[in-house]
Amino acid sequence: MKLVTLKSAIDHKPCANDFAVIEVPMPQCPSNGVVVRVVHLSLDPYVGSTLRDRHMGHNAPTPMKDPITGGIVGQVVQSTMPDVGEGDWVHSMEGGWLEYAAIDAQHIRKIDPSIAPLSAHAGVLGMPGLTGWAGITQLANVGDGDTVLVDAAAGPVGGTVGQIARIKGAKRVVGIAGGPEKCALVENEYGFDKCVDYKKDGWRDDLGEALPEGLSVFFENVSAEMAMIALGHANLYARGVLCGLVDAYQTKTQSQHAMNIGMVIGKRAKLHGLVVYDFYERWNEYIAEAAPWIREGKLKIVEDRMDGLENAPILFERLMNGQNKGKAVITVAAE
Amino acid sequence: MKLVTLKSAIDHKPCANDFAVIEVPMPQCPSNGVVVRVVHLSLDPYVGSTLRDRHMGHNAPTPMKDPITGGIVGQVVQSTMPDVGEGDWVHSMEGGWLEYAAIDAQHIRKIDPSIAPLSAHAGVLGMPGLTGWAGITQLANVGDGDTVLVDAAAGPVGGTVGQIARIKGAKRVVGIAGGPEKCALVENEYGFDKCVDYKKDGWRDDLGEALPEGLSVFFENVSAEMAMIALGHANLYARGVLCGLVDAYQTKTQSQHAMNIGMVIGKRAKLHGLVVYDFYERWNEYIAEAAPWIREGKLKIVEDRMDGLENAPILFERLMNGQNKGKAVITVAAE
Repeated sequence: MKLVTLKSAIDHKPCANDFAVIEVPMPQCPSNGVVVRVVHLSLDPYVGSTLRDRHMGHNAPTPMKDPITGGIVGQVVQSTMPDVGEGDWVHSMEGGWLEYAAIDAQHIRKIDPSIAPLSAHAGVLGMPGLTGWAGITQLANVGDGDTVLVDAAAGPVGGTVGQIARIKGAKRVVGIAGGPEKCALVENEYGFDKCVDYKKDGWRDDLGEALPEGLSVFFENVSAEMAMIALGHANLYARGVLCGLVDAYQTKTQSQHAMNIGMVIGKRAKLHGLVVYDFYERWNEYIAEAAPWIREGKLKIVEDRMDGLENAPILFERLMNGQNKGKAVITVAAE
Repeated sequence: MKLVTLKSAIDHKPCANDFAVIEVPMPQCPSNGVVVRVVHLSLDPYVGSTLRDRHMGHNAPTPMKDPITGGIVGQVVQSTMPDVGEGDWVHSMEGGWLEYAAIDAQHIRKIDPSIAPLSAHAGVLGMPGLTGWAGITQLANVGDGDTVLVDAAAGPVGGTVGQIARIKGAKRVVGIAGGPEKCALVENEYGFDKCVDYKKDGWRDDLGEALPEGLSVFFENVSAEMAMIALGHANLYARGVLCGLVDAYQTKTQSQHAMNIGMVIGKRAKLHGLVVYDFYERWNEYIAEAAPWIREGKLKIVEDRMDGLENAPILFERLMNGQNKGKAVITVAAE
């Protein structure tokens, strides 16, 4: 079977050429676990730092041996778990870029293939969706009357943030994204009130115009610098969710990620550090709440999808360069 | 009557020589307000930045004309307020360094002289005490099992923070202060479990030893750098109150006050910006709760007190240099 690995250790922003597809034997089933036929593979920005050994909770995979880290949706072909059988559909964050994955029981979550398209479990019902839900509903507690700002808004976390904020009663939802196509996606598909293009001259003025009454909640995906810009538009007592530093994942050195503490005080802001791992145990709760939203068309599935495991490096490079629109998914095999 | 003013505009850390005592006429009573005979005058670090026009909500006083900003405790000698009469005791944040102050009704809070020594209303029952109470009880919600760290612990805010944290059930209270005398005060008078002397070599190791199980709450009075040190000892889901940047009040330029946002995320920290103004309307609630603590000896009154308005500049210079122990109070006149 095929597996995608690093050619050698890297310390730069990953590009397609850093990866190799190798043939490896079929994996053994763990004593309490499963072997999964990978159908959909989720490509995510955090993997960029994982590959350089810089992401908490993940070690860099060994070149020419380990698969690249990745969440997967697949079908069980072998099981030693009492409650999971052959043919069951599962999701796991401990899959990887490969055709068949041996996964321990504690990393396996059974999914119901009837509630939504299977690939949605890699995106809006997967880790990115859970991240957005956790920040909006569990930390910032968005409700009626809130004005919410989120950056990387065309991505699966940002898109979910805005849509769930709207569902929860936000009166205004504003996004920041790069380029007119992404902004159109955010406004037309995700239904934000406004998406500001940060690649346009004068975008800081556009942002001010998009937030005439300021903001009460911001959700930060990109950088400390963007968090400070958001805080500049914050009303008193605003809540901020500090979630990701995509910029930093891709840079070689650990920068300061500096935030001006005096401004946090002046705005009486409440800031929450969010790590999605903490919410893994509530995944089924999230799915139970979100699956109806998908069926009702309130939560959109937008994918940047390619077929074939061998295309994962190309799609990942596109993700690293911010060229994806929606959730980057590789369909490894037919459902 | 006497009034203390600036000799001229300053842009440095204030010292005693920057001030002049001038003679001015007795003030007129406002149409809805009082004239107060100032008895106790509170000297506070925020005044350091006010004098350089850098503190939110306060403009720098005009040299050789306006009194220096300051909270006062005093007795009403003239009143046009329906509910405040001659002889009543009052507190105001809009008093100043002077013998008689004309103050508008909305800045007057009547106090009960029988519940605690009058000067306590400048300190532990005054703005510094309210600050500590707000952070510990209203923002961080300290309760059973918390381990609390606070810096500038010998000062009136830090001291109150630790004592109220203990009253609210904290299992361990640790302070940071400069020099053995201040640390002894924090441990022996305020009853902290430990106070670490940041002027000692190896104090960072001492801090680690003082927090063998980390901390669940920190209260930041000094700088972003200290907040980052606190965050380094924080357990997951720690709460931080960002209250003051005493260091920055005293420096000439606006520095970055940089906080590492990646660490906030990694620790899943919850950070609260605190500005005490927001809690002024709850002052009586605080006093009702805290006055019994004073009577029971759980909340100590520790003052660095001098008699005579003309000594305010000297005591203020001492405060600016961190040489005070406890609340800096000038007793302007006999009670």
